[in-house]
Amino acid sequence: MDAIRWDGDGLRLLDQRKLPLETQWIQCRSWQDVALAIQQMVVRGAPAIAISAAYGMALAVKKGDDRRQAAEGLLAARPTAVNLSWALERLADVPEAHLEQEAIRIHDEDRAICMGMGQHGRNLLSGGVVTICNTGSLATGGYGTALGMVRSAHNSGREIHLYVLETRPYLQGARLTAAECLHDGIPFTLITDSMAGALMASKAINAVVVGCDRVASNGDTANKIGTYTLAVLARHHDIPFYVAMPMSTLDHRAQSGEDITIEQRPGSELIHVGLQQIAPTDTPVWNPAFDLTPADLITGWVTENGFWYPQGRAPLDDADRNR
Amino acid sequence: MDAIRWDGDGLRLLDQRKLPLETQWIQCRSWQDVALAIQQMVVRGAPAIAISAAYGMALAVKKGDDRRQAAEGLLAARPTAVNLSWALERLADVPEAHLEQEAIRIHDEDRAICMGMGQHGRNLLSGGVVTICNTGSLATGGYGTALGMVRSAHNSGREIHLYVLETRPYLQGARLTAAECLHDGIPFTLITDSMAGALMASKAINAVVVGCDRVASNGDTANKIGTYTLAVLARHHDIPFYVAMPMSTLDHRAQSGEDITIEQRPGSELIHVGLQQIAPTDTPVWNPAFDLTPADLITGWVTENGFWYPQGRAPLDDADRNR
Repeated sequence: MDAIRWDGDGLRLLDQRKLPLETQWIQCRSWQDVALAIQQMVVRGAPAIAISAAYGMALAVKKGDDRRQAAEGLLAARPTAVNLSWALERLADVPEAHLEQEAIRIHDEDRAICMGMGQHGRNLLSGGVVTICNTGSLATGGYGTALGMVRSAHNSGREIHLYVLETRPYLQGARLTAAECLHDGIPFTLITDSMAGALMASKAINAVVVGCDRVASNGDTANKIGTYTLAVLARHHDIPFYVAMPMSTLDHRAQSGEDITIEQRPGSELIHVGLQQIAPTDTPVWNPAFDLTPADLITGWVTENGFWYPQGRAPLDDADRNR
Repeated sequence: MDAIRWDGDGLRLLDQRKLPLETQWIQCRSWQDVALAIQQMVVRGAPAIAISAAYGMALAVKKGDDRRQAAEGLLAARPTAVNLSWALERLADVPEAHLEQEAIRIHDEDRAICMGMGQHGRNLLSGGVVTICNTGSLATGGYGTALGMVRSAHNSGREIHLYVLETRPYLQGARLTAAECLHDGIPFTLITDSMAGALMASKAINAVVVGCDRVASNGDTANKIGTYTLAVLARHHDIPFYVAMPMSTLDHRAQSGEDITIEQRPGSELIHVGLQQIAPTDTPVWNPAFDLTPADLITGWVTENGFWYPQGRAPLDDADRNR
């Protein structure tokens, strides 16, 4: 499954809001189209957003738009994922003639980075594994971060059973990760987010693995809302908790989680599921899209270069690496 | 709001599956109608199920049905809540001529019991309070257990802000508790189940209060799926965790949680929200309706008679009672 297609003149994005029931592609012909698609979550997932924004810059150059304005407009589309600003900064000084090529390179590199995380991380995973959100080919350039690690473990012959949190309110687990697992034959079971505790208490769970949207230099990790709950549960049950982190997700300018802006999404996302209303119209709602997991609840960060740890943290010992 | 009306000839149940968008009453004219309504969750909530089953027995007697068969049929409708078997046992030896009267008495007593829990428990609650599921007037004979405590605290002038978990998969929090809070003017905010951790990390939360479906004699507590996750989070954040427990929910025959049967519900409840499909059709699902919270994660049980503790547990000190 892939979700981002560049045809040289325009960007086609798989409309992930419609999955798994409809497969519908949206054509973006300008950077404004791309910014809107990011903001409205046609495309989501920190790496996929970065790749789409890079193609958005390529479209801006093709149309002769003001580059600074395009970069600012794309950056403002979603505030939490750092990969977006990383991609835009990488493109800032690229000459116009090479911008399209550089965007394609960012896309290609992302696949290689995900394969790298898979290779370094797959030995951590066996038996029952829990994950949240969608961190697969739909969230990236085509392979996946946390789900890429699971895919890599599965493909290398390790016995894996993945428990997928449905991931309210946007249901990326139920809608997207379930579809990827079915597509790729990865054994899995869907649960509600609230079942994670009962799952860890009653089934053999060996690891939790999640993606990330921004990691501060002390290791505090912003990721999909519900990640922190999962990390506390993992600690209580003495289960290792891994973060799959492309190095581009590390924000050196953020010293700790306090320096990370958490996006607040519209309350209507909790009052409706798709077109169906589930709560009374006037219900007051709190709807942060992400939460912060403090570094001390995280066992290790898996990157394309191997393990990463914040300064002062002892690396995993061999028992953790090869369990 | 009330959900159970006896008119002397039949039982009218508010169809809680349709709330908050539609107010529709279902007429039960036989014990079989009542058993089906319980099984299909027209009526839910441990006390409300018990009251409905009592009226079901009254209908059985009126129609000259076999009483043992009716009791067995009603008991089988849902396996986890103990109040159901408590009510049926209480009615077992009541002469036919007095059965209707005794069912009405069970209904009336439930309101008094809930008021008692409110009186004993309301001083535990102030400021930010978290709850799950619906434990209000819709789940009982008309006042509520955990939500009754919140209502009692609010009505006695204490400043309360209730955070309501939406309570997937059946959304009793979003659909029912939100509607009760709006109806009664209790200040509240709806969150997804996954936000409970981030909420406790970022807002001032003073207590968690939940209902229960069956409590073993050692204090292990079966309640709505997600309760255990909430209890682990409360412990991690050093927040008191209270269970509102009518004495009829205590199962003396269950020594510990291991003796409690946890109902598994159909997988379709996770694949659909109402009529809307959210996950691929063939998705494998785990769907326990309840989970078990071990006694050592529970600060105290509030009953109609005051606090209850399992044998060997020291009671709350004054700091907890009056914080």
